[in-house]
Amino acid sequence: MTTAIRSEFDQGIALTPRPGGPGRYDGELGAGWQIGGGINGGLLLAVAGHALSLQHPGHPDPMSISGYYLSASRPGPVTVGTEVIRGGRSLSTGTASLSQTDEQGRSVERLRVLASFGDLGAAEGEVHTSAEPPRLPPPDQCIGMEHAPPQLIEQAALLERFDLRLDPATVGWALGQPSRNGRIQGWFRLADGRDPDPLLLLLVADALPPVTFDLGMPGWAPTVELTVHLRARPVPGWLRVVHSTRNLAGGYFEEDAEIWDESGRLVAQSRQLARAPRPA
Amino acid sequence: MTTAIRSEFDQGIALTPRPGGPGRYDGELGAGWQIGGGINGGLLLAVAGHALSLQHPGHPDPMSISGYYLSASRPGPVTVGTEVIRGGRSLSTGTASLSQTDEQGRSVERLRVLASFGDLGAAEGEVHTSAEPPRLPPPDQCIGMEHAPPQLIEQAALLERFDLRLDPATVGWALGQPSRNGRIQGWFRLADGRDPDPLLLLLVADALPPVTFDLGMPGWAPTVELTVHLRARPVPGWLRVVHSTRNLAGGYFEEDAEIWDESGRLVAQSRQLARAPRPA
Repeated sequence: MTTAIRSEFDQGIALTPRPGGPGRYDGELGAGWQIGGGINGGLLLAVAGHALSLQHPGHPDPMSISGYYLSASRPGPVTVGTEVIRGGRSLSTGTASLSQTDEQGRSVERLRVLASFGDLGAAEGEVHTSAEPPRLPPPDQCIGMEHAPPQLIEQAALLERFDLRLDPATVGWALGQPSRNGRIQGWFRLADGRDPDPLLLLLVADALPPVTFDLGMPGWAPTVELTVHLRARPVPGWLRVVHSTRNLAGGYFEEDAEIWDESGRLVAQSRQLARAPRPA
Repeated sequence: MTTAIRSEFDQGIALTPRPGGPGRYDGELGAGWQIGGGINGGLLLAVAGHALSLQHPGHPDPMSISGYYLSASRPGPVTVGTEVIRGGRSLSTGTASLSQTDEQGRSVERLRVLASFGDLGAAEGEVHTSAEPPRLPPPDQCIGMEHAPPQLIEQAALLERFDLRLDPATVGWALGQPSRNGRIQGWFRLADGRDPDPLLLLLVADALPPVTFDLGMPGWAPTVELTVHLRARPVPGWLRVVHSTRNLAGGYFEEDAEIWDESGRLVAQSRQLARAPRPA
């Protein structure tokens, strides 16, 4: 079974089963998903999530997925191994590992993932959300990446895959005037128009520029750990995304993301621990 | 090497190496750590964290630790297996698994853990915290567990291990008047006076009553996943703890915890995904 290729994202997470290796797959990390010299961590999490979704019949959706980033991924072939830990009635839990072969021909692990899968379509029960979606100007009044500093685009090929419109109130950093509030927010959709689904939300959780830009700290911020909780299946259309941090200390910071769909539903919450950019 | 027994907590996480099994340990889950019929998830995470801290010389502290809860733990023997995934300069990553033997003599996995360890004592760099510690009345003006409803204490032996003083403003639920803000906060220390350290913070991240009590939903809330980020080593003394939720939907809710030490430092941030209590 090979995944149908519908969009750049589906191509980015496509997997070919390895002959003779149940639960093992080959993939290809496209150069178009690079950022700051490596492959975007959200895309890697979506690759792992895709492999795990194939292990759990009846439980297609990552309810909770945690990735620990071990070394910087490079464009090129990637192998994915999975292990089913437990199959339950409403949740199944498994682990996945992404590896690449280095210049010396050695296998190097890039990412280890633990996740519980379920069926968001079967989710029942009341919705009690005290979180509020970000108030954003309409997309056409937000800042597209065509206005981004060239040195940002240069290091972030993946931005060309996105139709990302940032709230003007949170892009002062692009003009050398960061708000220092620790918040970046905006509208997100894929440039090729593919609609959001749970696997895409894993990418979106790590899609905005590092929130440290807004603290006046340019430079890339490598992810140590990223956990995403999927809370509902998104409806088609734009997503609203907020990234924020409340504690940068000792060389690390947390980056929280909330993702809202066009119906106004909070569809994903995530938190990552990342290394603070080094002073220039 | 056997861990020195200093307090009930140290006894609760004590491990004996398994002969011939490197990285494998035997422990004992004490009946005193029960809550709602199982062993408290924070204590289990601390047991796993203890085992992993022994695998990573020079990296004693869990910088980020994620636990996926597979089945309800019972008082009695537990075995812990560990695997070192990667040893790095500033971080080492490993996995741990807690298992118990069921009535039929089968090994049943309770908890799978992924974690990156480092040295919080070596953490350098500025501290930029926009989060604010909770404003609490002094401990002697807060509500001790001696005032808790008997049916709560009955199901939560672990509360006797704690000196927990809840903010009167967030305990209306105990009188049938939940605030419905989704917030419970208070002071925490161990009843036997043992001072906090990083492993204890793993327990504290899951130590308060479920925040769903404050939404008017009594009943226990099984944890699906719990990730704790340790941000600094705590100084001796009281801890301030805030549990909050912003989204209960489709039968699940997230519970965020912040833990502050007596010096006013934010020492840990955690988030868990839990199942909402079923309507009575």
